[in-house]
Amino acid sequence: MNHKRILYTIGQVIMVEAVFLALPLLVAVIYGEQKGVLAFLIPAVGALVLGGLLTLFGKKASFELRSGDGMLIVSGAWLGMSLIGAIPFVIAIDSCSYVDAFFETVSGFTTTGASVLPAVDILPKCILFWRSFTHWIGGMGVLVFVLSIAERSFGKSIHILRAEMAGPDVDKVAPTARATTKLLYHLYIALTVAEIVALLLCKMPLFDSVCHALATAGTGGFGIKADSLASYNIAAQIVVTVFMWLFGVSFNVYFLMLAKRWRDLKKQDELFYYTGITIVAAVLITISLTVSGVTSATYSGDIGKAIRDAFFAVSSMVTTTGFATADYAAWPEFSRAVLFFLMFCGGCIGSTAGGLKVGRIMVMMRNAKNDLRRAVHPRTVKKVSLNGKTLDDATTAGICTYFVLYCAIIFVTFLLLALEPTRFETDISVAIACVGNIGPAFGEAGPMAGYAMYSDFATIVLSFAMLLGRLEIYPLLACIMLGSNKKGTN
Amino acid sequence: MNHKRILYTIGQVIMVEAVFLALPLLVAVIYGEQKGVLAFLIPAVGALVLGGLLTLFGKKASFELRSGDGMLIVSGAWLGMSLIGAIPFVIAIDSCSYVDAFFETVSGFTTTGASVLPAVDILPKCILFWRSFTHWIGGMGVLVFVLSIAERSFGKSIHILRAEMAGPDVDKVAPTARATTKLLYHLYIALTVAEIVALLLCKMPLFDSVCHALATAGTGGFGIKADSLASYNIAAQIVVTVFMWLFGVSFNVYFLMLAKRWRDLKKQDELFYYTGITIVAAVLITISLTVSGVTSATYSGDIGKAIRDAFFAVSSMVTTTGFATADYAAWPEFSRAVLFFLMFCGGCIGSTAGGLKVGRIMVMMRNAKNDLRRAVHPRTVKKVSLNGKTLDDATTAGICTYFVLYCAIIFVTFLLLALEPTRFETDISVAIACVGNIGPAFGEAGPMAGYAMYSDFATIVLSFAMLLGRLEIYPLLACIMLGSNKKGTN
Repeated sequence: MNHKRILYTIGQVIMVEAVFLALPLLVAVIYGEQKGVLAFLIPAVGALVLGGLLTLFGKKASFELRSGDGMLIVSGAWLGMSLIGAIPFVIAIDSCSYVDAFFETVSGFTTTGASVLPAVDILPKCILFWRSFTHWIGGMGVLVFVLSIAERSFGKSIHILRAEMAGPDVDKVAPTARATTKLLYHLYIALTVAEIVALLLCKMPLFDSVCHALATAGTGGFGIKADSLASYNIAAQIVVTVFMWLFGVSFNVYFLMLAKRWRDLKKQDELFYYTGITIVAAVLITISLTVSGVTSATYSGDIGKAIRDAFFAVSSMVTTTGFATADYAAWPEFSRAVLFFLMFCGGCIGSTAGGLKVGRIMVMMRNAKNDLRRAVHPRTVKKVSLNGKTLDDATTAGICTYFVLYCAIIFVTFLLLALEPTRFETDISVAIACVGNIGPAFGEAGPMAGYAMYSDFATIVLSFAMLLGRLEIYPLLACIMLGSNKKGTN
Repeated sequence: MNHKRILYTIGQVIMVEAVFLALPLLVAVIYGEQKGVLAFLIPAVGALVLGGLLTLFGKKASFELRSGDGMLIVSGAWLGMSLIGAIPFVIAIDSCSYVDAFFETVSGFTTTGASVLPAVDILPKCILFWRSFTHWIGGMGVLVFVLSIAERSFGKSIHILRAEMAGPDVDKVAPTARATTKLLYHLYIALTVAEIVALLLCKMPLFDSVCHALATAGTGGFGIKADSLASYNIAAQIVVTVFMWLFGVSFNVYFLMLAKRWRDLKKQDELFYYTGITIVAAVLITISLTVSGVTSATYSGDIGKAIRDAFFAVSSMVTTTGFATADYAAWPEFSRAVLFFLMFCGGCIGSTAGGLKVGRIMVMMRNAKNDLRRAVHPRTVKKVSLNGKTLDDATTAGICTYFVLYCAIIFVTFLLLALEPTRFETDISVAIACVGNIGPAFGEAGPMAGYAMYSDFATIVLSFAMLLGRLEIYPLLACIMLGSNKKGTN
């Protein structure tokens, strides 16, 4: 355990956050929001000072990260960023408690998109921008960015941080891990800019386009209107549908396309299933919407709208974004059950999407199929493969263990939410929506509502549930284990 | 694949069922229920003829079961028994469809205890007895009984059928597997008789005592009154609480007690956690019942009743029995969330209880803890142990895979139930209650209600969900795989 080194890196991350805080500050200046200027100036300066002090106190040297160090750095960096990122909300919004502000920031950085703020429409523009921007920052992760610049032995350390960043196979694309990371960020920026341009072409105002593109890129879901995207025109809704889906695709796929490695591209069976799940789910929901008595009044006369809303909701849920063009919490139960599965499922491994990920589910299902085959023919030996690569038993077992932990955390979150006056359906879907970083859920926490009804206790529980989900469980739990088991760690 | 041998064994099982059908026939004669006599005479004779024909057509010889054969025998025997066992319902009850009768029988044999019959009180006594008796038969399993008598190489075959019978470690208790099986059935009968005597001492009528004891032994849950056990006296309710819990204990524990192997008994950490879960859950629910506004009117003035009802519900849910002294579907959500966990959890491995089983959850949690430790200290090598025995990696991985399949089946069941007009909470808890062989669930399918509101389609889906749960998934799924993949099997 190298405490000084850990503090040094966390200090660097916080200094980067100070730079990020300058952007909403600029927005506040442009729109003349005086309170907003203060709201971002104070934490920006504070972050610079705090980050600077940590950097000075810590020790810089090139080093290979050990697993335990990596876990502490990831947890510390994300917690620190969220604690600082919450300050603007408290200053800029009257009657916003720090607990609520912390939730909102964690929801942003973890790309969840659940909101406890009562009314989004009346928020200052700088705050709206900051909310969307936190999604963009959190989607790709800051730590890998910082380390890729600061550490010489970055290539050896990157595997420890794979949960933080999209694209776990990146080391094989460019000659060095640093070059790959650079390519990844460039791609992320390029795709975001492409969406801004596409939305502008659909006549969405510039500010709205930027905010929505940032939130789409991180698969976040914070909107800037109370009805999310329902009041925008059809073209804009389709653009968002497509881009949400694109950001749920593994960045490895884009790398392979850029490198014109078509043969490797064909082996990406996760992409195949991701596409298949999207289409099947959207078709099932379209049928359910037009047939069911609950929604047929709206949809049976306008199949085009049913298809659009179904694809939008599916794209939003499978990528764990959380935007909405319709209140799917009021849809027929079969539609909600399909969306419920998508909430669990999530996008591709190596995308900015949350959830379990399609690839993990494929591995678990293929493994189960092999086990069944072995039950009938005990001598069968067959390994599980994904994207054309054969996985060793430990990797497969690790994915199943991850699922066990994932369910356990959802259950504990649900149990604690059950203390609230909200309904059963609300609480169980909220637990899944937070751990899976989706945001909107069902019942009282649907896409047109929010999480404002929850107590401070529940708000804090859900903040940690979101962090656990975003960092893929291990770092935070491992830190708790390190804390409770100090003797063994030195 | 040895089709003749498979048919022979299934034929034997069906003949044993014919003998079992004589008991409710006797009940019908005693209570002078003429329709009831016919209702049981017809299927009993039919089963004798069918079973005899299958036995004649099949081929008897001592043989070691292969895995594939075992899967087909288990699936065929259980399906056959259920199809025949449903006939009395159709004959004895006016307006009982065969689909409903099949559901009721599967619910009985799988020890689920969910009912689609509209009113239990008015059923003839012979049918009430048959319902309870199916629990008792299904709790321990018929197939192992048949094979232990018929097969010489039974000791080598038993591991294939372990899912059907309680007590998977039995081979180590007595010198031969056959002797162990005999001991097991004796113990099962002795405990059942003990409960009958205890209930009689509590002044419960003989018929009621027998029915409740049979249903408790199998951890089934079919009652003989519409309010389950709510209208019996406190002493009887406590007796049932205790015996439900006792039947959720692994039979290995009783073997060890009988053999006075106290040192081995101390290593049974599953028993320790099972006890702990029961007490913690009951205390949490007691607090929830007395504090919450939903139930405080009933319970805050009568803490004794709160404790009794809480322990009864916990004992009923953790053992997946499904009896009730109170309508827990109307309890505060926190109480329901705790019960929800118990529904997933289930009793001990090697008991008649359903669910995932405490031991499996322990293995998964210990494995996850080891994985977390490895994430921090990559060189740590630690195996998972249960009841003092170290498990190999394949066993641990197999348990995680089982959990994956378990969740997948619950989800598919839920998705199909979502087509029904019932609520979200109802459908998801019913899916868990059927796969876990609990019976009553929440929402519209609470312990004082039933499953009568579901369509024929849902009834059939749930019948298969119960069978999948009772036979621990593999046999039925493997048969489907054998059917769809015939080329590979020969």
